[in-house]
Amino acid sequence: MKVTPWEVEGSVDYNKLVEEFGVSLIPDKIEKRLKDTHPLLRRGIYFAHRDFDKWLSNYDNKKNVSIITGRGPSEKMHLGHLVPFLVAKSLQENFNCNVYIPISDDEKFYVKENLSFNDSIEYSNDNILDLIALGFKVKKTFIFEDFVYTTIYRYAARIAKRITYSTAKATFGLKNENNIGWSFYPAMQAAHILFPQFQEGKHLSLVPIGIDQDPFIRLTRDIATHKDFDFEKPAAIHAKFIPSLYGDSKMSSSKEGSIFLSDSKKDVESKIKKYAFSGGGATVKEHKEKGGNPDIDVSYQYLKIFFEENDDKLKKIYDDYKSGALLTSELKQILIEKLNKFLEEHQDKKEKAKDEINDFILED
Amino acid sequence: MKVTPWEVEGSVDYNKLVEEFGVSLIPDKIEKRLKDTHPLLRRGIYFAHRDFDKWLSNYDNKKNVSIITGRGPSEKMHLGHLVPFLVAKSLQENFNCNVYIPISDDEKFYVKENLSFNDSIEYSNDNILDLIALGFKVKKTFIFEDFVYTTIYRYAARIAKRITYSTAKATFGLKNENNIGWSFYPAMQAAHILFPQFQEGKHLSLVPIGIDQDPFIRLTRDIATHKDFDFEKPAAIHAKFIPSLYGDSKMSSSKEGSIFLSDSKKDVESKIKKYAFSGGGATVKEHKEKGGNPDIDVSYQYLKIFFEENDDKLKKIYDDYKSGALLTSELKQILIEKLNKFLEEHQDKKEKAKDEINDFILED
Repeated sequence: MKVTPWEVEGSVDYNKLVEEFGVSLIPDKIEKRLKDTHPLLRRGIYFAHRDFDKWLSNYDNKKNVSIITGRGPSEKMHLGHLVPFLVAKSLQENFNCNVYIPISDDEKFYVKENLSFNDSIEYSNDNILDLIALGFKVKKTFIFEDFVYTTIYRYAARIAKRITYSTAKATFGLKNENNIGWSFYPAMQAAHILFPQFQEGKHLSLVPIGIDQDPFIRLTRDIATHKDFDFEKPAAIHAKFIPSLYGDSKMSSSKEGSIFLSDSKKDVESKIKKYAFSGGGATVKEHKEKGGNPDIDVSYQYLKIFFEENDDKLKKIYDDYKSGALLTSELKQILIEKLNKFLEEHQDKKEKAKDEINDFILED
Repeated sequence: MKVTPWEVEGSVDYNKLVEEFGVSLIPDKIEKRLKDTHPLLRRGIYFAHRDFDKWLSNYDNKKNVSIITGRGPSEKMHLGHLVPFLVAKSLQENFNCNVYIPISDDEKFYVKENLSFNDSIEYSNDNILDLIALGFKVKKTFIFEDFVYTTIYRYAARIAKRITYSTAKATFGLKNENNIGWSFYPAMQAAHILFPQFQEGKHLSLVPIGIDQDPFIRLTRDIATHKDFDFEKPAAIHAKFIPSLYGDSKMSSSKEGSIFLSDSKKDVESKIKKYAFSGGGATVKEHKEKGGNPDIDVSYQYLKIFFEENDDKLKKIYDDYKSGALLTSELKQILIEKLNKFLEEHQDKKEKAKDEINDFILED
């Protein structure tokens, strides 16, 4: 197993990662509190944390708490990209807190050799509409883009002063032949994570991230308490990897292996039928006899993670698939319908988001 | 001899530098054209160039030309700091062109471990008043500060993408334990030099600099023609080092060896009398007999470089000092009076500049 922010190899042992990274498993007590939140939170996808207990108790004690989760804009967003935002939105609904969403167009621009400056801004604009479409609260949600809200440079600079090239190189896997925008970006990312505190003063801010990104949180927690800032160390909740349609450990942006938010009904039907990794038997006969394995079945996983909010219904699907009563083609059909309903609504809301964009963009 | 942007050692052989750096000596033909400009230009302090001939001929052909010269703000400015700005102002008067003045508060902040963010901005504000006091043309002069005019990050990012850490390290003498703001700064500096072209489109912009800074110009000229930008390679004129009062090769910010723009008349009198390196005889008797050496006398040099604009008067001072007719104390007195008149007027204009600042600051 190898898990770094830029590489995931082998089969992932999450318990080992928790130990290695020095994070904590989310305890039952907290999970119970999350029973009305998004499936991603209450079904163990977000499985580990740093100071999430403190964040909750600060909320209980009426102290200011916030959420920050960012996005490196890409040509088109896929389902996997939504994970931290679905969680942020759900927590915002439950804890009525501010949500900050930095869009790191600069990161993508630095890292992708052939991405033009204008395209990086265009992708941001498109991705921002996808995020607004999720239904965040107006006046409590602040979206900003590094190349537009350039005031962020003032904060990034203050952090940059406290990160040596050696540290950035180690944490971000930089090479000497990478460009100096890239090597500056760690400061920008830390500025994003600390941005709620730059804006609202010292308080506890929560970052939903993939477990592989924890090294960045560690770096930022170190910086937060530097005497230049005297901030709270940001809290974090860590997600397991979301499988691609193929059942790989991490959903990538491959055309067939991912469901894009802009996919048509036909695209979805075709992708799920063709590519969604199945835990079913080799033949219908075998499936009916021996049953399927929902735990490795991608369609079931997507229902569990994203689309079947009702626990009883999900359990029935699980049991029926396991017993063989529910066929793979039937399971896929359930997902196709749920997914297409979600995407239809999303695409509709995204269209409407064009009129709402000014309510969410932070002014420079 | 060792001359890098961050170190000058030994006695400087300017002809050798011209050869090493691949720049050209300013030819007589150009010097003649400069007969009505500031002494710094017409008395050989600016001695070398890149494409200055082209800049002049573009001007003659009514093509757009501009000047760009920046400042890393310091607690207080001294006389040596004025050199490129006196030249920029003189060229602006003669060629009626736009002058851009970037203030790199970020550079100083990155490089000086103990300089606070707020102090770096405060020093900028003070230095900007010193620059406005020089009398640049309104509506043709644009001053901007990196931490205020943060739009500059958009330009710096585009350049950063095209500079590897290796290149920045070599050109700027970076070490791995330096911070990542510092290693990003080469992009910011190139963005400053190319800023006139980002603003006004492709044209020839001239950079007055010290000869030791030429490596930065070379780097920026390389970047300028990258297909991302398709700019003109900026032109440059290169100055020799301005001696400190001690007669050192490069004026530093040591308290006694420099004349600060905020110095009182008494400060000036005392510094010149005590510290200004003299080319005179050991005793008055010896001086009268054998004469002095104006070529190594700092007071004479300052009159030549800054304060005695009249060529005939300067020649008389030179001849009289050489013959011994003019004593060191008398030569120093001439400088003290000229210098104090300049500083009195400057301090007055700086006070008035507070009301003019909005006419010069570029809006974000």
